[in-house]
Amino acid sequence: MLWGWCWLFLPCASLGTGCNLYSSCRCLCSVSTCALIISAPVHSGRSGQALPLLLTEGMGGESSGHVQLKTQLIVPGLVGLCCSWLHALTKETLKYSHVMFFSLLFQFEENFVETKEQLEKLIKGGDLLFQQVPMVEIDGMKMVQTRAILCYIAGKYNLYGKDLKERALIDMYVEGITDLMQMIMMFPFAPAEAKPKNLASIEEKATKRYFPVFEKILKQHGQDFLVGNRLSWADVQLLEAILAVEEKVPAVLSGFPQLQAFKTKMSNVPTIKKFLQPGSARKPPPDENYVALVMSIFNLS
Amino acid sequence: MLWGWCWLFLPCASLGTGCNLYSSCRCLCSVSTCALIISAPVHSGRSGQALPLLLTEGMGGESSGHVQLKTQLIVPGLVGLCCSWLHALTKETLKYSHVMFFSLLFQFEENFVETKEQLEKLIKGGDLLFQQVPMVEIDGMKMVQTRAILCYIAGKYNLYGKDLKERALIDMYVEGITDLMQMIMMFPFAPAEAKPKNLASIEEKATKRYFPVFEKILKQHGQDFLVGNRLSWADVQLLEAILAVEEKVPAVLSGFPQLQAFKTKMSNVPTIKKFLQPGSARKPPPDENYVALVMSIFNLS
Repeated sequence: MLWGWCWLFLPCASLGTGCNLYSSCRCLCSVSTCALIISAPVHSGRSGQALPLLLTEGMGGESSGHVQLKTQLIVPGLVGLCCSWLHALTKETLKYSHVMFFSLLFQFEENFVETKEQLEKLIKGGDLLFQQVPMVEIDGMKMVQTRAILCYIAGKYNLYGKDLKERALIDMYVEGITDLMQMIMMFPFAPAEAKPKNLASIEEKATKRYFPVFEKILKQHGQDFLVGNRLSWADVQLLEAILAVEEKVPAVLSGFPQLQAFKTKMSNVPTIKKFLQPGSARKPPPDENYVALVMSIFNLS
Repeated sequence: MLWGWCWLFLPCASLGTGCNLYSSCRCLCSVSTCALIISAPVHSGRSGQALPLLLTEGMGGESSGHVQLKTQLIVPGLVGLCCSWLHALTKETLKYSHVMFFSLLFQFEENFVETKEQLEKLIKGGDLLFQQVPMVEIDGMKMVQTRAILCYIAGKYNLYGKDLKERALIDMYVEGITDLMQMIMMFPFAPAEAKPKNLASIEEKATKRYFPVFEKILKQHGQDFLVGNRLSWADVQLLEAILAVEEKVPAVLSGFPQLQAFKTKMSNVPTIKKFLQPGSARKPPPDENYVALVMSIFNLS
């Protein structure tokens, strides 16, 4: 097995970005995570300019004018927070996409990085604190780091529990689900020959490690939501994970009746229902063009 | 470069744990992260029993009796939260170790996983929600997921800002520092031939990406601490990162006068000063024995 680890490290060292294993992974995660679109309120819709892969608030978003917009999306009345895969070039076929969303209604503006130059310009302009996407402009802040952004929005919209202990549970659940989701986010970037094994691993982890935990929690307390019987960030993350795994393994919920019921209930929350319908900001899973674009922008190919 | 990615994925698929790339990384992170010792209050010191690699509160810790204790540490009056590398077998040479700590005084009890059987027993016993270490027993909860644990302790001890915006800044800074720290955590597990390049990458990321950000923040606001002019989780993480990088690149702070001053100030906070002295719970960087042990326990070798 040691051999495996050796190879696991060596290629990282050989990456053009000069990153070590973790930073490669991180980079790759970011590549996928840069894939994250996190919505933020837009006070006034604008058009013709925006920051690719960023989400600008539209108000106080002085920086949002300095990159030529190629894809722009202004979605009035969309679910409050959505955190989905970015598909930089296509916006159709939204039916089967990874999503994370909160049940708040507001408008947001999505912007995508589509060239290496755009990314470099953003970095040079100082908009990306640690030189990475995503970035969200919200409440006068240019927020970076996916988890920090999501924590802020969850806190702001009361989706983060009523006290420290509830927040701790939400954090635990979110972190666990994120581990599963990151396997899924990495999937499109694996070479074809590795995909069957990766897929089997996703299925195994979902059905043996993560889903049983939430099945048990829901069964034990008999409530609609994971924590404190009200919608939280953890519920949104879990629904996202369920939908994402089902895209790859359609029958994955067959042994999990509680999760089936949870999925149905969550999918019928009006704003979530709307978000799951075609025409929303929901994105399809990354395709080959997306993977190639991401690897090109981030010097990975 | 695509070739690099291929190799990056293939070995993951070949790991005995059946994990894909991310979960391998995750696993490896956990291996190091399992390395994390997170302190929690101990209401009553106990001895002779504990959960390796876990930290039990000593109160309501029914589970802490079911694994034979081999290494146990009760440190009265230690800094409140410490999150350091675990060195499972040796506890000497504490001088140059990775640390993260908070300036609160309380006792805690550290426990270490030292055999595969211990880990399996913990998993079977249901103590590890997602079948991973670390776990901390605190306030009647068996908390898992490093980040969730740290969030909770930071919140509990007022190290997490005075409002949502301060918390957002702390989260952003902590996440960035964590990215750097994870490169360091992975370092001991890289094969010898990859280490020079990994080390160069750590130095480059520290001096070009992460440290300049904090140097600038400290210079701009002229305050002692990163956020709100009072000690927060972010300060502790930054000090930990500075010490960790300095272990590998001693002169790394030469171009960062603000960070030098920050390090001096932080290191003189009485509880932190105590924690940095020999004899505390601070651990040395992983050595070969530790790496071998970890790889054995987690089926990585």
